[in-house]
Amino acid sequence: MAIDKVMSKEAFASFVESAKTVSGYRDPIAFGITRIDRGQKNEDKILQATFALTNWNENFGSAAVFAASLADAGVNVDFSASEFVTEVSRDFVENAMNIFTPYIEEAAGNDHKNVQVIKHLSELFMSQQVDETSFKIVFLFEDSAPQSVEAIYLKLYGLSEAKVALRSVNLDGAFGKLENVAWSGNMPIELDWLRENEISLKLDGMYPEISSVDKFPRFLQHVIPADNTRILDASKVRMGAQLHAGTTVMPGASYINFNAGTTGPVMVEGRISSSAIVGAGSDVGGGASILGVLSGTDGNPISIGENTLLGANSVTGIPLGDGCIVDAGVSILAGTKISINTDEFNKIKEANPEWTSADTDVFKGAVLAGLNGIHFREDSLTGAIKAFRSTREVKLNADLH
Amino acid sequence: MAIDKVMSKEAFASFVESAKTVSGYRDPIAFGITRIDRGQKNEDKILQATFALTNWNENFGSAAVFAASLADAGVNVDFSASEFVTEVSRDFVENAMNIFTPYIEEAAGNDHKNVQVIKHLSELFMSQQVDETSFKIVFLFEDSAPQSVEAIYLKLYGLSEAKVALRSVNLDGAFGKLENVAWSGNMPIELDWLRENEISLKLDGMYPEISSVDKFPRFLQHVIPADNTRILDASKVRMGAQLHAGTTVMPGASYINFNAGTTGPVMVEGRISSSAIVGAGSDVGGGASILGVLSGTDGNPISIGENTLLGANSVTGIPLGDGCIVDAGVSILAGTKISINTDEFNKIKEANPEWTSADTDVFKGAVLAGLNGIHFREDSLTGAIKAFRSTREVKLNADLH
Amino acid sequence: MAIDKVMSKEAFASFVESAKTVSGYRDPIAFGITRIDRGQKNEDKILQATFALTNWNENFGSAAVFAASLADAGVNVDFSASEFVTEVSRDFVENAMNIFTPYIEEAAGNDHKNVQVIKHLSELFMSQQVDETSFKIVFLFEDSAPQSVEAIYLKLYGLSEAKVALRSVNLDGAFGKLENVAWSGNMPIELDWLRENEISLKLDGMYPEISSVDKFPRFLQHVIPADNTRILDASKVRMGAQLHAGTTVMPGASYINFNAGTTGPVMVEGRISSSAIVGAGSDVGGGASILGVLSGTDGNPISIGENTLLGANSVTGIPLGDGCIVDAGVSILAGTKISINTDEFNKIKEANPEWTSADTDVFKGAVLAGLNGIHFREDSLTGAIKAFRSTREVKLNADLH
Repeated sequence: MAIDKVMSKEAFASFVESAKTVSGYRDPIAFGITRIDRGQKNEDKILQATFALTNWNENFGSAAVFAASLADAGVNVDFSASEFVTEVSRDFVENAMNIFTPYIEEAAGNDHKNVQVIKHLSELFMSQQVDETSFKIVFLFEDSAPQSVEAIYLKLYGLSEAKVALRSVNLDGAFGKLENVAWSGNMPIELDWLRENEISLKLDGMYPEISSVDKFPRFLQHVIPADNTRILDASKVRMGAQLHAGTTVMPGASYINFNAGTTGPVMVEGRISSSAIVGAGSDVGGGASILGVLSGTDGNPISIGENTLLGANSVTGIPLGDGCIVDAGVSILAGTKISINTDEFNKIKEANPEWTSADTDVFKGAVLAGLNGIHFREDSLTGAIKAFRSTREVKLNADLH
Repeated sequence: MAIDKVMSKEAFASFVESAKTVSGYRDPIAFGITRIDRGQKNEDKILQATFALTNWNENFGSAAVFAASLADAGVNVDFSASEFVTEVSRDFVENAMNIFTPYIEEAAGNDHKNVQVIKHLSELFMSQQVDETSFKIVFLFEDSAPQSVEAIYLKLYGLSEAKVALRSVNLDGAFGKLENVAWSGNMPIELDWLRENEISLKLDGMYPEISSVDKFPRFLQHVIPADNTRILDASKVRMGAQLHAGTTVMPGASYINFNAGTTGPVMVEGRISSSAIVGAGSDVGGGASILGVLSGTDGNPISIGENTLLGANSVTGIPLGDGCIVDAGVSILAGTKISINTDEFNKIKEANPEWTSADTDVFKGAVLAGLNGIHFREDSLTGAIKAFRSTREVKLNADLH
Repeated sequence: MAIDKVMSKEAFASFVESAKTVSGYRDPIAFGITRIDRGQKNEDKILQATFALTNWNENFGSAAVFAASLADAGVNVDFSASEFVTEVSRDFVENAMNIFTPYIEEAAGNDHKNVQVIKHLSELFMSQQVDETSFKIVFLFEDSAPQSVEAIYLKLYGLSEAKVALRSVNLDGAFGKLENVAWSGNMPIELDWLRENEISLKLDGMYPEISSVDKFPRFLQHVIPADNTRILDASKVRMGAQLHAGTTVMPGASYINFNAGTTGPVMVEGRISSSAIVGAGSDVGGGASILGVLSGTDGNPISIGENTLLGANSVTGIPLGDGCIVDAGVSILAGTKISINTDEFNKIKEANPEWTSADTDVFKGAVLAGLNGIHFREDSLTGAIKAFRSTREVKLNADLH
């Protein structure tokens, strides 16, 4: 006994309003419907979740429709939990189709994308091509440590689709919940299944092409970048990375880890390690390394400002402000001792009015963290690492001055 | 009313001679027939051109045949333009088959490759597997800024098939004319088409495997390297790069951009940026960077001579001659101050008789640009960058001495 | 006239015992049955060997069964040769099936894998899907220079499946015996075949996606890593590399060549060149280079101990012991002059009781080779390379003290 068809947009609005009065109801911070890849050997293992659409603090009406459609199909959403995941049943789809009736026809292109999802699911179920274990619906009510693979993927989508800010999402324990699998193109394969079938696959000449073995998929398996964004090698950007429009990732030594990326157009020829963020107009030179929270930054994530240049094969272990330059081959870590003469100290001070350091001859890298307009060089006559006021433009924050 | 069959090689020669008397006729600098990938959403967008064969300052008879075959099919080639691109019609193919008649049978292997192209097109059209929008014929009459995607691809083929020298082709504005697309193997996909179909592709489990998002394809999508050339990862070499036989490109931090490459056998474990060229017997060590015209060379492209070693993680921002060594981890830029003692100065002078510099203690990198037989080191006791006469052999140009 | 069915395990044991009494019989050091990829143009060229199972100093009973099955099928194994390779015939498979009869039913999962191979071959031959040129059986009796592509692959499997130690196998001349081919996924394609078919493949839109051109395949084309091993980009690890469980290979500048790898869990973000080995708990930082026997180590392969850190963009050209640190951007080669003060010298001496060097101010890198607990730094005030006793734990060998 499905929910009756809703025959007008007014009736739809009333339905949603009423659906939200269910005891304990609350709007999700995120929700979406995902196709599921299950273990070839162990069907209970979720290897990957591919979301047709994700909603982050938006489309609450659709969320209410989905919750009501589940309830009528016998599944009560637990609104008190931090997340709720359940299978997409035929009854759920039929209910949602009925409720969405006034929008079905106009659901196309950029309009009513949640309705489009239900419409396509309805077609799939009618064509008998799929069964009820192929899809799940996921609600996040709080940003707690994720409890399921599906919730982790929803959060990775949030990051990679730039619906949430980098470093703003709780991914505690995510590594432990994801399976390490062999990826053959977009398809995850259990390693144990490969082992069990190795002899026959190899003798048959059917052993699959494996592009990686990892817990995470690649960004481009799930996310369509902006028109002016370029990723020359899919292996270089992990799902969960965030690339602002106009970013280019070259194929040499570059890499962008999950929960790391760019907040403006950036040329990336080096490594942006986990939790590192690079600002608009900056250039991460060939082989340049920005250290991550797992490698030498004492857990403090590194931000690089705007219009900053990291030279080829340089290493940056401290945050940098706007308009900085690290020369090719130079390494600046928190403990690096950096010489600055009084003239340059004064210029740097001028570009960084809030900086309170007294003038000395030598500064530790950590003391210069986050400053604008610094040029780090190695004096090729003496080997000393020195800092100067850079020639790069620094846009002073008008609110502060 | 197709052109009559040409019944002998003598008649063919006469036909070609006569075809060249057409008013305004001139030999193309390059021409070829290409398969076209069009936009899935916008058929007018050319996403890729795959040439069955390219001709560069050669096979002018075939060019004349093609122009005559087009004219009879109602398309007059504009010989006054810098380039001319038009679709390959059934009538064109029939005409060309008729003219090529005396060569059809012997067109196989390495013989009469333009005839082979027409022969295969004729079979395709007869089998009804393709239509007249699938192929184009492209003529370049001058090396001006390319006006079409097809002309850009023909020039990239010229570079990557080593039919023209690196840096010798006009590619002005090419970036602006190429679409940024998602590459699924050899197939380009419009990003907008992916966006429009994301929901159904993902729910159907049919979302394509995307290997890169870029305006350029990869070298190995279009070019077959020499027998002793190795490219361990296709993503590392962009279409438009040129690799001399015997070059090896390892998969670590290496990368060769378009309009860059090698002119002899070279071991490549580092980055050869746009417009950089490396000579025979040289070794670009692991993670070594040769800066490109877009990154720190003031627009002057860098050439590296023969038998030169760039150490692991070194950075080279100036041209180098033959028999040089840049030690591992050393960066030599135009502004780097380099110490040379008088003894070594004299040895360097001996290896570079044309070098006119006076002896001083310290030389800027730019002053040492292009010299042979220099070994750049960092003194690990003092940190000073020093240059010595290298132990590598320098083959002096006999014509000069 | 096939060998009679062996009807009991006791009879099987007798059969094996008797089979080993053949004149000249000796146990192979390795053997296995492999599927063969032959040249598209030249069927005599073996392009790849994919082993369903390899045996290294184990399962000698199966080896005896295989030799007897071959003999009855008319092929006498030459036990006096260093290796023996022959085609897998229907008669051979029938014989082996008959001898393995008592084990056929229980051959599944991890049990009786050689029997599983024969069982599956028998099914394939019965289904007529294959012919007798598709498979080979390979015996190695001595670790001499390999004479065949099949023997080379068996040795590469030995290394990559960790059935033999790194650097312990004779691969002399292997490069010369392997064909350089285009790899389209797992399928090798002769370059000459591509050339001959380029016109038709391209006009038909069927030109294959080429992922690499190399003599070697990739590790992941043949080997299933341990559950906790991750390889984020298949191009980064060559067949013949060995990765201990728990090793992670990131996709930035990393690379592991054949006959190189890890002997414990290692984080790999840099290059492990041919013949280099890295111990448990060590970390090869982003872009770090460990030089190989072909690049600057004078042919002495480099071992890195346990719990050692190679900083981002560092270069190591000498062996290192346990608990060492090479700072980011620092290069330590055999000839690097390294300053150590007396206090640190004494601490280093304490961590390396066997080290016999006298105290001086400056040590060449080669003199410090293999020592434990050294921290290599560049003094950022003076540019001097200095060594200190590191803060990393060194596990002294209890047997030695």
